Amino acid sequence: MSVDTICALATAPGGALGIIRISGAQSLEILSRIFTKDLTTAQPNTVHYGHIVDKTSNLQSPTSNLVDEVLVSVFRAPHSYTGEESAEISCHGSRYILNRVLDLLIQHGCRMALPGEFTQRAYLNGKMDLTQAEAVADLIASTNQATHQVALSQLRGHFSSKLSQLREQLLKLTSLLELELDFSDHEDLEFADRSELLALSKEIDTHITKLARSFEMGQALKQGIPVAIVGKTNVGKSTLLNALLKDDRAIVSDIHGTTRDTIEDTIDIQGVTFRFIDTAGIRQTQDTVEQIGISRTYAAIDKARIVLWIIDEEPSDEEVNELLKRTENKKLIVVRNKSDKTNNNSCNLLNLPLVLISAKYGMGIEDLEKAIYEAADIPALTDNDIIVTNARHYDALTRSRDCIQRVIDGLQMQLSGDLLSEDLRQALDTLSEITGGQITPNEVLGNIFKNFCVGK
Amino acid sequence: MSVDTICALATAPGGALGIIRISGAQSLEILSRIFTKDLTTAQPNTVHYGHIVDKTSNLQSPTSNLVDEVLVSVFRAPHSYTGEESAEISCHGSRYILNRVLDLLIQHGCRMALPGEFTQRAYLNGKMDLTQAEAVADLIASTNQATHQVALSQLRGHFSSKLSQLREQLLKLTSLLELELDFSDHEDLEFADRSELLALSKEIDTHITKLARSFEMGQALKQGIPVAIVGKTNVGKSTLLNALLKDDRAIVSDIHGTTRDTIEDTIDIQGVTFRFIDTAGIRQTQDTVEQIGISRTYAAIDKARIVLWIIDEEPSDEEVNELLKRTENKKLIVVRNKSDKTNNNSCNLLNLPLVLISAKYGMGIEDLEKAIYEAADIPALTDNDIIVTNARHYDALTRSRDCIQRVIDGLQMQLSGDLLSEDLRQALDTLSEITGGQITPNEVLGNIFKNFCVGK
Repeated sequence: MSVDTICALATAPGGALGIIRISGAQSLEILSRIFTKDLTTAQPNTVHYGHIVDKTSNLQSPTSNLVDEVLVSVFRAPHSYTGEESAEISCHGSRYILNRVLDLLIQHGCRMALPGEFTQRAYLNGKMDLTQAEAVADLIASTNQATHQVALSQLRGHFSSKLSQLREQLLKLTSLLELELDFSDHEDLEFADRSELLALSKEIDTHITKLARSFEMGQALKQGIPVAIVGKTNVGKSTLLNALLKDDRAIVSDIHGTTRDTIEDTIDIQGVTFRFIDTAGIRQTQDTVEQIGISRTYAAIDKARIVLWIIDEEPSDEEVNELLKRTENKKLIVVRNKSDKTNNNSCNLLNLPLVLISAKYGMGIEDLEKAIYEAADIPALTDNDIIVTNARHYDALTRSRDCIQRVIDGLQMQLSGDLLSEDLRQALDTLSEITGGQITPNEVLGNIFKNFCVGK
Repeated sequence: MSVDTICALATAPGGALGIIRISGAQSLEILSRIFTKDLTTAQPNTVHYGHIVDKTSNLQSPTSNLVDEVLVSVFRAPHSYTGEESAEISCHGSRYILNRVLDLLIQHGCRMALPGEFTQRAYLNGKMDLTQAEAVADLIASTNQATHQVALSQLRGHFSSKLSQLREQLLKLTSLLELELDFSDHEDLEFADRSELLALSKEIDTHITKLARSFEMGQALKQGIPVAIVGKTNVGKSTLLNALLKDDRAIVSDIHGTTRDTIEDTIDIQGVTFRFIDTAGIRQTQDTVEQIGISRTYAAIDKARIVLWIIDEEPSDEEVNELLKRTENKKLIVVRNKSDKTNNNSCNLLNLPLVLISAKYGMGIEDLEKAIYEAADIPALTDNDIIVTNARHYDALTRSRDCIQRVIDGLQMQLSGDLLSEDLRQALDTLSEITGGQITPNEVLGNIFKNFCVGK
């Protein structure tokens, strides 16, 4: 474990205030060397007003030695974020000042923190497990209610405690297996044990599978739920898109500027982000002949969870069948546009959700948003629903499920207990990887924390 | 005086942490309504760990009500920045979270702070005078050592105490004048008093004039000291500029992106920013015929404090005289480029600073930087040198100087004491305007604080 004292700017530069964080055994000694007050005996959780001074500066005047008027918050081990001695310096938000304070800290013995190093130390010092550490990064990156709730639930340890329940069940299974091994001479006992083992294995499998399946939803919530808009040329696709976006322009531009590399059209409905696939294509091709059969449309459908099929007249049976075939695993919403122009608002696609709108006059847009949200089938984000959002967790869950499924197969094929217990042990280890309960290799830790911001 | 409780984000969005500030009598009551701990009886200068919760949320689960895990620093009146009850919430730096916390604070009785309103309250509550309040904004905007030192000196009250010395001298002058009035019957006394009054008036005038004159330097430090590069075509102006800029590229690009509207070439030498005027012109016109006489060059010289005249051969007497005439009030540095190509490094401009360089090979660039810095004639930024950087201060100083000069004129013209005392009173009032010692009109306060960042 590292004993360096680390420092980093924890806020974005450019505000009224800038916060510099320090953590490590020497935090208060180092800070006291550049502060006008001795902080080494400061009470925990106290705030101290004073000046950051460059005592090594060869400038003569007291003003020249002075770097800033600051507030320092002192946290004493183990009752700090990292579990170490630590402090936060609240400076004036000038980049020049913040750089000078960091320089001084480094001159006096700190080193610059790596991305996520404060949280990594919190993990190493037992203040949180790995899923909670990962939730910190997710929480900072959260842009809407859904991602915020999922990250916060994970930070509070709901995912961890679900995993610990599963581990307990696996341990119970292991002990039952051992019991079976112990009593394997008693032939009349075996059959009963095997069925109990099988039932328990299947239960564990169900739970792990449910968690693993939630990953798709987790990804969709993180990245925005993909929606494809299809329909004939001039049916009003781009007008509809504009009507949807208009409702939500502020949030959209916010997201564009901050979290996405490529500019995509997104809207937030009830705190969930929906992302329109290939919408650039929709706009660019609106005056060329584009029919439902163009391959780009199919590619968009493939990537979507929800497909909006815009029609302005009764589609032919052939068209209906073609689209149904293409959207087999998708949520299909039929949107009848230009509903202001016709009295015929029925449709022969009676078994599909149908929304009547006039994109041009903004009519029915709210109904459509409601239909989109319902089609997304977002689980109520309560404590009981764990949503896996992290690819590392998903990978471990999948591997753990493979193990438990080998146990199930083995039980059904009447394999001997010692063969099964190997798979069981592996299922347990794989689950433990997620929270980092086992010793986690540095390489894995490096991968987890490298995407954090510096200062967290 | 306002009794609202105000809140604002004090850090730039996008970091690991975001700090929300609250100030006003109701701060701790309002905060306690959305925090998991009662803070109304919290000790001053203490930090509290807890959760921001939306108790009004109609979502059922405890996670859904939870907005963030935070640290709250509590400051009690009058020992806070504003002098009021106040608090700072250190949140995870997600824009979504920060907006929700601000929303909750507003729901429970805060209002969003105006730009600079925290500092305005600090002023109104007597925690600092107006020059110190203005220094806070300058400190946050400081980008180099010079602007940092000037702002910090002002924040620490050095300018204020200089002004208070001047006011004391003016009061002394007033009382001497009253003495003269009292003894005006005694003809033999008058002459002595008048000469004493005149000497003191002139001393005050000298001090005020010195302060007012420092404004030009203050502006130059704030905006970068303007430097013009002149010389014949192909003499190496743009190569020289590039050589100067290369030394300093990182800082330059920083400044471009953050503090300037138009992109100008700037370099930092020993903590002071120099700004090259009309350098776009130099680059654009380097392959057209441009002689020393082109009007654009003269315009650049007019705006400059320092003129670099680049030559690669002995200039004619006519050229020398022409340039000397044009640069009468400027610092002129003669730069002999291509010094690698010639053995003749003398120059007939012996009374001017001459720097030998080879822009192409980067030779002599350090010497040139040193010459530029020296030409700027930056005063040692010690406690004894006050530099006025603020146009409002400059305006008041100029008006005050006008008054004191009317007093001097009046004394010399033997005007009666009651006529002089009117000007004296005005000189005093005008100086008081600067620190806001007199009651300052809301309009003036509004102008001062409107350019602050929100949250400070």
